[in-house]
Formats: sequence, structure tokens, C-alpha cells
Amino acid sequence: MIISLKKDVRKEEMNHLISWLESYGVRTHISEGEFQTIIGLIGDTTRIDTDLISGLDIVDNVTRISEPFKKANRKFHPEDTVIKIAEGVEIGGGHFQFIAGPCSVETESQMETVANAVKASGAGLLRGGAFKPRTSPYDFQGLHEEGIRLLLETKRRTGMPIVTEIMDIGHLPLFEDVDVIQVGARNTQNFELLKELGRINKPILLKRGIAGTIKELLMSAEYIMAGGNERVILCERGIRSYETYTRNTLDLSAVAVLHEMSHLPVIVDPSHATGVARYVKPMALAAAACGADGLMIEVHNDPPHARCDGPQSLTPEQFDDVAKSVLAVRCAIGGK
Amino acid sequence: MIISLKKDVRKEEMNHLISWLESYGVRTHISEGEFQTIIGLIGDTTRIDTDLISGLDIVDNVTRISEPFKKANRKFHPEDTVIKIAEGVEIGGGHFQFIAGPCSVETESQMETVANAVKASGAGLLRGGAFKPRTSPYDFQGLHEEGIRLLLETKRRTGMPIVTEIMDIGHLPLFEDVDVIQVGARNTQNFELLKELGRINKPILLKRGIAGTIKELLMSAEYIMAGGNERVILCERGIRSYETYTRNTLDLSAVAVLHEMSHLPVIVDPSHATGVARYVKPMALAAAACGADGLMIEVHNDPPHARCDGPQSLTPEQFDDVAKSVLAVRCAIGGK
Amino acid sequence: MIISLKKDVRKEEMNHLISWLESYGVRTHISEGEFQTIIGLIGDTTRIDTDLISGLDIVDNVTRISEPFKKANRKFHPEDTVIKIAEGVEIGGGHFQFIAGPCSVETESQMETVANAVKASGAGLLRGGAFKPRTSPYDFQGLHEEGIRLLLETKRRTGMPIVTEIMDIGHLPLFEDVDVIQVGARNTQNFELLKELGRINKPILLKRGIAGTIKELLMSAEYIMAGGNERVILCERGIRSYETYTRNTLDLSAVAVLHEMSHLPVIVDPSHATGVARYVKPMALAAAACGADGLMIEVHNDPPHARCDGPQSLTPEQFDDVAKSVLAVRCAIGGK
Amino acid sequence: MIISLKKDVRKEEMNHLISWLESYGVRTHISEGEFQTIIGLIGDTTRIDTDLISGLDIVDNVTRISEPFKKANRKFHPEDTVIKIAEGVEIGGGHFQFIAGPCSVETESQMETVANAVKASGAGLLRGGAFKPRTSPYDFQGLHEEGIRLLLETKRRTGMPIVTEIMDIGHLPLFEDVDVIQVGARNTQNFELLKELGRINKPILLKRGIAGTIKELLMSAEYIMAGGNERVILCERGIRSYETYTRNTLDLSAVAVLHEMSHLPVIVDPSHATGVARYVKPMALAAAACGADGLMIEVHNDPPHARCDGPQSLTPEQFDDVAKSVLAVRCAIGGK
Repeated sequence: MIISLKKDVRKEEMNHLISWLESYGVRTHISEGEFQTIIGLIGDTTRIDTDLISGLDIVDNVTRISEPFKKANRKFHPEDTVIKIAEGVEIGGGHFQFIAGPCSVETESQMETVANAVKASGAGLLRGGAFKPRTSPYDFQGLHEEGIRLLLETKRRTGMPIVTEIMDIGHLPLFEDVDVIQVGARNTQNFELLKELGRINKPILLKRGIAGTIKELLMSAEYIMAGGNERVILCERGIRSYETYTRNTLDLSAVAVLHEMSHLPVIVDPSHATGVARYVKPMALAAAACGADGLMIEVHNDPPHARCDGPQSLTPEQFDDVAKSVLAVRCAIGGK
Repeated sequence: MIISLKKDVRKEEMNHLISWLESYGVRTHISEGEFQTIIGLIGDTTRIDTDLISGLDIVDNVTRISEPFKKANRKFHPEDTVIKIAEGVEIGGGHFQFIAGPCSVETESQMETVANAVKASGAGLLRGGAFKPRTSPYDFQGLHEEGIRLLLETKRRTGMPIVTEIMDIGHLPLFEDVDVIQVGARNTQNFELLKELGRINKPILLKRGIAGTIKELLMSAEYIMAGGNERVILCERGIRSYETYTRNTLDLSAVAVLHEMSHLPVIVDPSHATGVARYVKPMALAAAACGADGLMIEVHNDPPHARCDGPQSLTPEQFDDVAKSVLAVRCAIGGK
Repeated sequence: MIISLKKDVRKEEMNHLISWLESYGVRTHISEGEFQTIIGLIGDTTRIDTDLISGLDIVDNVTRISEPFKKANRKFHPEDTVIKIAEGVEIGGGHFQFIAGPCSVETESQMETVANAVKASGAGLLRGGAFKPRTSPYDFQGLHEEGIRLLLETKRRTGMPIVTEIMDIGHLPLFEDVDVIQVGARNTQNFELLKELGRINKPILLKRGIAGTIKELLMSAEYIMAGGNERVILCERGIRSYETYTRNTLDLSAVAVLHEMSHLPVIVDPSHATGVARYVKPMALAAAACGADGLMIEVHNDPPHARCDGPQSLTPEQFDDVAKSVLAVRCAIGGK
Repeated sequence: MIISLKKDVRKEEMNHLISWLESYGVRTHISEGEFQTIIGLIGDTTRIDTDLISGLDIVDNVTRISEPFKKANRKFHPEDTVIKIAEGVEIGGGHFQFIAGPCSVETESQMETVANAVKASGAGLLRGGAFKPRTSPYDFQGLHEEGIRLLLETKRRTGMPIVTEIMDIGHLPLFEDVDVIQVGARNTQNFELLKELGRINKPILLKRGIAGTIKELLMSAEYIMAGGNERVILCERGIRSYETYTRNTLDLSAVAVLHEMSHLPVIVDPSHATGVARYVKPMALAAAACGADGLMIEVHNDPPHARCDGPQSLTPEQFDDVAKSVLAVRCAIGGK
């Protein structure tokens, strides 16, 4: 961490700051220039609050040199993390997974039809929403408990592990038999929820915030990991920009950046990112080409009558085509 | 709502869509052009899910003409809402309030010092965080229960009503004697929390999301109001943009837009928006000039040693100067 | 175009508007609802200025149903445009090209070394900047005339057609023997320049603006095409967002959207988008996977000593590796 | 400037970098930590290209401590710059000006009506566009030479100095009798144009880019000033964001930031920022309250029939009301 002081700071104020900084266990290194004095901090600065320092009257600005996350940081964990979800279903470190299924769980027959179809096309996990975060209180909010029950029933029949979204800590008991718990883009910084998920022993699929930075995503992963649960899957799902032709702007560079900065698996959700079914295939191929460890794709047996997000859902036939092309691209780039 | 169909849609498909739409109780109006057929929907379309329709194969695009919110909508409630918080402490409809206090509650003496000072300068409400949403799990997270206790103690001694942030439904019992419950920018779309707050009888201060749209803010207010609690105070606190000289970009136009679209009171938080104490005064004056119903300002008796957000906190003396200037501006624009 | 009128508009005002609209040669269709009256416009609305109408006192809002661009529009030109740049060098409609070379032209030997290397790796066009738009007036601005001379000399020796950026109409005479003229991201809306380029007979490589929308890019292409020059190559090069880990946010969805909306070739520049050499390969592969018609990649024989944009330049060896992998991906998706 | 090196950099590589840096006339200061070595640069780093250094293999990241602009920098010019436009018409350093007039010059009688009206309401300068940058090639592009002629005629009759936009260097001779030349938001980084304007002796009104940063605005001012023309007026006119209720997001914090960083006058254009006439007044008041040195406001004698930007134009009566309120606010904050 580098702290630049303002011009004409008095010696005693500077010494006061230095002794306070050293009380955090870091060493300081002073470099006095003609116009500016700079304090370099050496050691573990993770616990030093940048905001706090930059608020001081004598400080001009503060720059972090090292990242404020540790457990998610590849520097301290160079090997890719491989997360085992079920027998034969692993993700990360070369293991690629399709997570497919409808936006929201509607009926038993819908779930079974979709699950069997996507399984046949190579999907390793089944997704389906029981609790749906909707912008309007008047839109369909999901089947709740009944939705979870239908998911578990489908899991029992098809053998597919399931991924579903949690929206509140209070619902956690319902997720006991869920294989992967998803934290949605509106809850990426619901820190109380993250802390709670850090205490359980289950993989967490953590989506990037609606307008979240890469660093915020990693810090949210750190919240979960700091609690002891290190099985976090990161998910790029598009960020908010001024462009309106797609629902969000899919930031595929984030896949490359996240792989560099972190050892955690990184997947991509082209369905929510684009919001348009016909853009899902090109974006799924692009995600595979730049090294994503998996894809989360909405598939519905009857998109026009889906109760949620129909415009972005593929039919099982379309998913099958996407899956085949994705595997061809993975093969071309040397993936397994 | 206006639905444009794709070229060459078959008659029966169109009729199928029309009868489905009419099942929602709206009337339809067809207008067939050379290149495009358009269906106009007349009546209450609040419950019709735009996404669902735009997902249909035969639909080109869908445009909402009327807003999807009702209870927060000025069209259906032309008079300004005035929210009474305590005896003599009202906000909205010409009643202006300063909400001042430290970012986080630290000690009893801190709270009392700050509360007495800001009260003397004209603040009607005391703010202070007991639960702090911090990006890093390693930063100070607030005093929790003890923080609420200190706030209530300060309220008892000074008579000032208090505003403090909730981060999880589970903490609600602790907020029983709190006067105004704040929903922070990271929880603006924590819909389960909003629903719960819709069931209580207490004013809610709802902040705009980190990168939230004006419409999303109004829809989140609608979540609370749909549950029966119509006492919502909207708060503009800066939005995320590419500009980095300020922490966020304070969107003061939102004050004018919100006042036009909704009857709810609108306040501004220049402290979080700018993140820099020396920009708080100009932005507070600007907010007052464009008609804000109140200001939420961070004040700390010793900003350099604040445990959180020191860089943006004013001293009590600085706050006093801001308050005087704000009142002069309000007077100039004809405010009470 | 759909025009929603305000409530309680007087009949004569509405009729006045209608007759004015019809003077543009469009037909109108009135649909009067309980709360709102809507006017639908049928016919060619390209020349009707949306802003102008939405400014009228009686108008609530205006929505365009059809796009305001014609020549660039796939609706009126369903076949992919193939642009022939030189014998055997075509782009679009299945023809893919690498455009490679240094950010700025520096010396004759540099140009020849790089040109020979990238040609050997399969690049069809050589790029190099003679006029450099730099944020700071104190940074290197390019070799200007001498730069163009060196490019033409390299073209003569290697036979590679060249692409280089124009920054001002006044420089146009220098570009007479240039094969493709590039319009950079800061000039995408330099309309006087676009108009002038519409009058010449040479392919134009038009970059998306720094924070330009897809629609603005197409409208800028329309400026060139409206003048008679229909050989425009569109280029996605990253857009400005709040994310700071990459220089810009590469918006690959734009490739899919542009291919749908327009018949013009679409290429991607991963070098400027990411600003980081080690992210160029994953993004180049992603661009190829989602169907880009070409890639523009910065290659320098000695990146650490490049006079401009060194951090994002590949060495010739790295480019060779990227080119091979891109071709494998194109093969996997069935490209030629 | 602070340069952090990568881990395990070889001594000779570091020394090579250091000697190269010192060749720019700066002194270096090395600070070797356990994990990281840091080089501090002391002296004038304006001419050192950050990109170039951060591209080196051995460099991890580079941070500028001092700003890369000099002539526009308040550090080197602490007093406010006051720009004299005509006898009795000054701006900056406490001198406030209204710049008012129609978006585009249409007819002689229009110009005279508007000019006389806004002059009576206290406007010091008349604005009007002769060259209009329009997104669509099919929209009205301005009267060009005839527009300039009408402006000069109105200036002759009313005595008001005039402000009008330039779009291309080639048009410069037409601007000989124009008092202030405006550079629009699409040309803020048209560096060739800025360089040319740096060579003339006339105040330049420089608008912030469509999605420009504060730093870019200052660097563009620097382009003009580096050429010798130091009379630059900065103009905040809204930035692009994801919010769609207003055309742009007016960033009033920029007024406070620009005043702190630069000695140049800063004005605000609420008409283009909001795009909606009824939001112009609240935003004009807010701009005055936060210390803007002037306001640029579109006024048209018949907004519904304006050939451009009608929706955002005020009538002369509305402008008179705004001007009175703005002066009251300026009085309240102690302005002259």
C-alpha cells in the first residue's frame, strides 16, 4: 500500500500516522520528494482499511498494491481448485460442466422432460429456480417450498445434482439436499447471507453483481471462504452498461481476469447476460473459447409459455446443438 | 403496452396471443401496417410480464406505455406524501429534514457529542450504523446489538428520532424502537427483506441501488407499499459510473424525476455519493436547490479516527456551516 | 413509430399534430384508450426526428419501432456484404481476415520485420498508425506523413494491403494509396469526417465509439453509406464501463447483434479492448467463436520498447500462436 | 509516479529500467519489500507515458501521483482564471454568465426575438448552432454558413457576443467574428481540432465528452492551452450512464472537482444533460448552488416547432423565471 501525503504536512502528524500504521503489524518506508512525501507499507495490509486512511486530513491519496483478498487469491493458491459436486461431476481445473434447466420450476412433468433432455445432451447439473427475484412485486415469484420439492423429486428420478438460488437466510433449511446453492446477482453483496453460506459445507455458485466489479465478486467469494467454505464457483452473467440491445453486457474478459487472479472455477451464464435466446449460442461458444469452466443455460420445453424469462430460454433441441458446438470449440482450444 | 409483431405472423397465432392477453382483463386494439402489425393493450397492464411476451416467437418487441408501479405512482396519488416520524418531525410536501450522524456507532460519548451538536445545528433525525455492509470481510462490520443499544440510549437522552440500517430479516426484532429503518444500496433489491418491511408499521428509508435505475428504486418502493406499509422515503446516493474522481456519480436529476413520477419524499445523501468530505457542501446545496426533501449527511466528532468512512465525514462545525447554507438556498427557492 | 399523447389533449391539437406528421408522407393510425391516446405511424419514418416530436407539449413519449438506418440495415439487404480489399483479400460473408501490425509506425526495419512475420502467420492486412490520437498532448503523436510513407514502402515490399487511421479531413490526400482507412473510436461521431469518407471509393474500417452504442455505430456507418461509399467494416473494440481491470469492456454480444441487424462485416480488436497483451489470446478466440469476420491485433517486434501501447502488443511468436488457435476455433464452428 | 515491479525481477532488468527513466530527467527512489519492489519517480513526470511503462514485462502496475496536466492545473496556477469575452462580459473568478439561445439558428426573426428576450432576462451571451452534430445523416444538420451569418447579424443588432459550435478545422475561417468557439461533446477528443484551436486567440468553450472522464476533459483543455491559447471554459453537460429517464446523467460533482483541480471557469448545460425542458430549472438551480460559473440554456421562441432539440428548450418566459431563481440561489450562497 502506498500513501501519498499532502504538501507541507507537519513532521509530528506524519509520525503519528506512521506509528498508527505500524500498530497493524506492517513496516513503513518513507520517501520524501520535493513536492510529495510517500509512505510505503510492507507486509500484510489486508486488514488495513483504505477508506479510513484516505480520509485523513494529511493524506492526498492511497493506492493498494496488493489485492485485499487472500483465500480466493491465486498468488497464495497457485493450483486451480477442482470442486466435486457429485460422483463424476467436477468443475474447474480442466473439468467443464453444463448447468441447464428452466428459469423457474413450474411442474413435475416440465422438470422431468427438461432434465432428461439436457442430461442426454451432456448437462451435468440441473438448474431451476424456486425462489425468483423479480423487479416487480406483481410478477411470478416462484413456487418456493413446492419448487424445491419438485427439484429434489427430479434429482431422485434422473440422478442429476441440482443448483437453485437462495434469497434469504431463513430459507436455508429447505436447501439441505440441494447440491449447489446459487447466490444471485442481486444478493452478491448480501453479506449476512454470504457469511451464513460460509458456515455450511456445500458448493456455492456466486454470481457477479448486476453492476459488480471483478474485485467485488472476489471479495464476496472471500466472505464465504473466510467462514470456512472454500468451494465457491464464480459466475459471469453480464454487467449493466448503457447499451440496450442486450439486457446486460456480457464481460467475457472477466473470465480471463478471474482465472488469472483466482484459483476458483469460473462459469458463464449467457442466457441472463443477453436476455435473448438467439444470442445464447454465439455467447456460449465465445465463453468456451476463452476458457470458461462451465456454462449455465436456460432451457425450457416450451419457452413461449415459460412463467419467467421465456425470451432467453432455449428449447432442448437448441440446447443440444449448443452443447455439441461448445464441445467442438473446447476441443479446438485443447480442453478436455 | 404496445406489442409489435414480427412480419408474416399467421392469423391464428396472433389470435391465440390476443385471447391470452385479454384473459388478463385488458382490451386489445390491433393496427395492421404494411410492414408490421401492432397490438395496443388498454387497461391495467401492471400484472402483465413484459419479458414473458417479448419471448414469444411471433413478437418483435414490447413497449410499456404506463409504468409498472401503482402505489408509488403520482398519477394515482397526486398529492405529496408527508411522513410523520415523530412529534414535529415530518418529511415531504414541503417539510425538510437533516438526518445527520456518524457512519457507524462507536461509543456512547461519540454518539452523544455528535447528536447534541447536529441537533443544535437543526438536524431532525440522528443516523448511525450498527450493521455495516463492508466490501471486505476483514473490515469493521459494526457493533451490531450493542450499536442499536447505544443509538436508543442516545435517543432517550437527546429526544432525537433515529435512523439505522438493517441488513437481514433476522435482525428485525432489534429494530423495534428504531424510528426509521434504512435499506442500504446493496439491499435495494433484497426482495425478501422488502416484503417483510412491507408488513411493519414504520417509515422505511430506501436507498437507490449501487447501480440502480430510477424505475428499480420505484419498483422496490412498490414491494414495500404493496405489503401495506406506504411510508417510504426515497434516497438518491450516487450511482456507479466510469468516473473515478468521486466514489459514485450523484444523480441529482433523479430528484426532479422522482418528484414528478412519485408522491414519496426524496432525500439525498451527498456523503456516500461523493465519498469526499470537501464535496459534501456543494452537493448538499445543489440537492437543496433542486428540491430534495432532506439531506443525509455523515458527521463525526473526529473524522480521522472514524472506524468507517472517515474521508467523507464532516465535523460538527462543518455540518453547522452546511446546514446554514442549505437553509439559505431553500429560502431562495421558496422552500419552507 | 408510436406516439403516446398526454391525458386530456384537445382534439384540435391532436389533429394539428396528425396533419403535420402526414406531411412527411406517413400514414397515421389513432387508438384512443381510457387513459391514453396513441398514434401509430405507418410508412418510412427514417426522416422523422424523434426528438422533435417528443418535445411537443401534448406528447408523453415516442417509440421507434423500425430502425432509423437503411443502407446498413439487413432488412433491406439480407445478404452478407463481402468487401474486396485486394486480390485474394476479402472480408465478410464467410471470409475472415487478420489485420496485424504495430500500434504506431516507428521505423522501416520495424515495419518490415513485423509485416513479414504476421504475413507468414496468415495476416491478410498490415496495420500501423501514422496519426495517433493520444489523451495527452505530451505523448507521442505518430510520425504523420513519414509514417504513411513507411507504410506504403512496406506495402510495396511485402505486397500486404495496409490499414491506417485518419484523424482529420485535411490529411485525406496522404491516404490516396492506403487500402483501408480507419476511423478511430474518438472520431466515430466526427460527422464531417464521415461525410467526406462517404464520397471516396475505398473501404472504411469504422470503430465503435469509446462509449458508443450499437445503434450509434450503425448510424455512423449510415453517414458514410448515405454518401455513396457502401464498403464499411464495423469494428467492436471495447466500451467504457465502470470495470477497471481491463482498459475497456469488450462487448462480444455486439458481434451477434450487429450480424443480425446489418449485412456489413464485423471485426474485433481485442488489443485495444483489453489493453493487456495476455488477455488478447482468450478474447481473440472468443471473438472468432461468436462469428467475427476478422481480428485486428497489435503486434510489435519489441513490445517493451514500443512508442505506444506496448502493454497490449503481442510479439510475432505470440501472434502466430493466436492465429493458429483462432483458425482451429473457426474450423470447429464451421467457418471457412 | 509509482512503479511496482513483479516478483523476482532480475537486478539488471531493474537497473536498465531505472537508467531509462532517469533519462527523462526524473530522480528515482527504490524501496524493496519482501514481496515487491517499488520505484518512486520524483520530478516532472508529465512527459512519461504510463502505458509504455506498464507494458514492460517486469512491471506489475504503475500509478500516477501527480496529474498529467500542467497548464490547466490549479497547483501551478492557484488563482481563478477570469476570461473576458467582451466589454463587461467576463466569466470565472466570481463572474457568472448565462449563455442562452436556440439549439440551432433557423431564421433572422427567430434569432432576434430570442436574443432580445434572453438579453432582457440577463443573458450575457447568445448561443445558436450553425453546424449541428446529429446522430442520423437524415436529420437537420444546421444552416452552416448562412447560420453563422445570421448569428453575426443578430450580434450586430443586439450587441450580444455569440457562442457557436465548430465541427471541422476546415470551417475555421467562418468563425473569425464569433466571440466564443464551442467544441461539442463528440469532438472533445478530436485532437487535431483542439491543436488548431490552441493556435488562435479566442475563448474556447470545451464540452465534456459524451462519456468523458473529468481527467480527459482537463487533458483536452491542456491540448488547447499547450498551443498557447489559455482561454478555455469547461462545460459539464451530462455523461452517459445506464439511466434512461434523462438523456444523460448530469454530473454536478464534476463542478466541485473541476474547481478544485483547475483554475479554469466551469459552466453547466442542463438542457443537453437532461434533454427535458421541465428538468432544466431544477438542474440550473442545482448547478448555481454548487458553484458553477455560468449556465448554458437552450431557449426557443416556439419550442414545439424548433428544428432541433425542441423537447429540451425553454420559452423566453420560462428562461426569465429560471434566471431570476438562479440569481436568488447565487445570492444565497454568497455569489456576486
